[in-house]
Amino acid sequence: MSSVSIPPPKCLLKSLVVPYRHMFGPGPSNVPLRILEAGANPVIGHMHPEIFKIMSDIKSGIQYMFQTQNNMTLAVSGTGHSAMECAIFNAVEPGESVLTAVNGIWGERAAEMTERIGARVNTIVTPPGGFFTNAEIEQALSKHRPVLFFLAHGESSTGVLHPLEGIGQLCHKYNCLFLVDSVASCGGTPLYMDQLEIDILYTGSQKVLNAPPGTAPISFSERACQKILNRRTKPVSFFLDLNFFPSACRYHHTGPVTAFYSLRESLAVLVEEGLQNSWERHQEVAEYFHAGLESMGLKLFVKPKEARLPTVTTIVAPHGYDWKEITAYIMKTHNLEISGGLGPSVGLVLRVGLMGCNSSKANVDMVLAALKDALKHCHKSKV
Amino acid sequence: MSSVSIPPPKCLLKSLVVPYRHMFGPGPSNVPLRILEAGANPVIGHMHPEIFKIMSDIKSGIQYMFQTQNNMTLAVSGTGHSAMECAIFNAVEPGESVLTAVNGIWGERAAEMTERIGARVNTIVTPPGGFFTNAEIEQALSKHRPVLFFLAHGESSTGVLHPLEGIGQLCHKYNCLFLVDSVASCGGTPLYMDQLEIDILYTGSQKVLNAPPGTAPISFSERACQKILNRRTKPVSFFLDLNFFPSACRYHHTGPVTAFYSLRESLAVLVEEGLQNSWERHQEVAEYFHAGLESMGLKLFVKPKEARLPTVTTIVAPHGYDWKEITAYIMKTHNLEISGGLGPSVGLVLRVGLMGCNSSKANVDMVLAALKDALKHCHKSKV
Repeated sequence: MSSVSIPPPKCLLKSLVVPYRHMFGPGPSNVPLRILEAGANPVIGHMHPEIFKIMSDIKSGIQYMFQTQNNMTLAVSGTGHSAMECAIFNAVEPGESVLTAVNGIWGERAAEMTERIGARVNTIVTPPGGFFTNAEIEQALSKHRPVLFFLAHGESSTGVLHPLEGIGQLCHKYNCLFLVDSVASCGGTPLYMDQLEIDILYTGSQKVLNAPPGTAPISFSERACQKILNRRTKPVSFFLDLNFFPSACRYHHTGPVTAFYSLRESLAVLVEEGLQNSWERHQEVAEYFHAGLESMGLKLFVKPKEARLPTVTTIVAPHGYDWKEITAYIMKTHNLEISGGLGPSVGLVLRVGLMGCNSSKANVDMVLAALKDALKHCHKSKV
Repeated sequence: MSSVSIPPPKCLLKSLVVPYRHMFGPGPSNVPLRILEAGANPVIGHMHPEIFKIMSDIKSGIQYMFQTQNNMTLAVSGTGHSAMECAIFNAVEPGESVLTAVNGIWGERAAEMTERIGARVNTIVTPPGGFFTNAEIEQALSKHRPVLFFLAHGESSTGVLHPLEGIGQLCHKYNCLFLVDSVASCGGTPLYMDQLEIDILYTGSQKVLNAPPGTAPISFSERACQKILNRRTKPVSFFLDLNFFPSACRYHHTGPVTAFYSLRESLAVLVEEGLQNSWERHQEVAEYFHAGLESMGLKLFVKPKEARLPTVTTIVAPHGYDWKEITAYIMKTHNLEISGGLGPSVGLVLRVGLMGCNSSKANVDMVLAALKDALKHCHKSKV
């Protein structure tokens, strides 16, 4: 006879307490109350007509945010990583050639994901902070003849905003799909999916959109859909198989409806402000921030102004300091998150994200004051 | 020069309105306000110490709910389907033999997922409403020598609660891992992971736990961890690769923190009531419901009483009626969701789920009244 032998854990008898914190790292960002509250609406069925309407509103919102007319536009039930796998799993078959631009962690991740499904991966690589010319990209496309080219628009690990002009056209010249990661950039800087001939574009909910992490907008061009439709093999994941998405009226999986409520609300906020206004605000605030950093004697990690991501700023790790002490001091003293590097940029930079509602001059002043205070109080070696 | 050509969608200028509805289908269930409100707490970083504490509380809660001491116990950032893929992707390598028990849709899904990653899949199959004897299972284990055996404990498409006694031991006799889907059953009926020698067990957040869909508790035995540790190939998914989970202090992906707040709260509710009390309540309410259905002249789809799932009840589709008219009538007139069949049970049954806070005699009375009303008002053929 069996019996309950694992006792109820006492830790769960205590109330959940979550502090408020200024989320000025590379994400997640702060979530406005109105978006949090949208997510607290009642759960109804993922097949109810109200949910189909919400999904349709979300689709329209993403089409606007991405500047695309693509019919295959939706929110993946998962974080940015799910969207990345959704793109790669659907667009690539085992044995196919894929080209990945690696100028930070996201290109590395895309290469890793692609290798796992048995594709042949080639990379073009530049040190953190760098980016690629169209000539370099064309040379690699011509050499490797990939079916898919991955590029991060906003490389949040290094703070680089990659130029996109002309790359979609190059890809199509070589009969290759153009996949762009805009998790850290979309909504905060101009991005025109259709005009740039991007075939697959995705972003996250928790950056400029200021929704909780857990959903990821994604869109596929007609060219991408055709390749997916003509696959010889099934994608490795049932959960992310795009063939199930077009017929929203068939049960596929239980959608995270409350996360969709929040996502819809976050897109409504963007629509109310207007995309152009949002882009301009992020640019203006970033320039104000960058000027403030330079006047403090700090150095920006990305040298060319036009390649600086307006959403995530990378600062050269201040000489003589331990960057971990700086971020810890600012968290402890100012209740404010900024972060160090990630992947190839660890130890090289401090990263500050001011995205969506967080992108304001008042917040810049708060970060600058916190940094000044940290540089005064943290230990400096006598080098 | 590019410009904004896709205009802001007007649909997003309207406020989000979500109706309240009695969610008495096979899931998602209604979510109590306290759990919805927990999810509206501020977003903080997925690497902040408070989140590690919340993840640790969740781990303790899942260990209690599953009755396991497994260290590798966690919540997957995704719905039940993600947990299913997490289990299969990590435990199985291409070319290996897998055995799947198919007595409804979940066995079919597991077989499909396993095929996609290149494993050799064998099935044992029984018509909807049936289940397997240990002798049948042993015969198949002995014949196919699988590395993994999949069984749905609660087959929500047919309403079958599968007996589990002795199957774990059989699996281990044949050096096979025992994978159990308890999405629809866990928390509502006795389930002892360790005593039953289950190697991988998962459930969903949106059933007995009454949390929003979007997270999925999962646990791996030491035996399962050893197999995963000794893989020759990497799992196809980076996102679901278990090798990243043990070191929670390393960045892997952005966790859906607000979904974890709700999940923690839902586990706290279970701890407060006590597992045994929850099991007994679900059983008592189910028996009350089943008696009520029979006294109305309706027939239960699952004949043996001990094989009836106490969380999801399947009723033989009433003779002479169109089941779709019944569910639509009840939704329209009573603001109450019950559903038809799923997969192999479509057209055969009506399904009613009373899970977690929804499992009460008052709700049974509400469903019975709605069914009576529907049978009176829906069109009946003169067969």
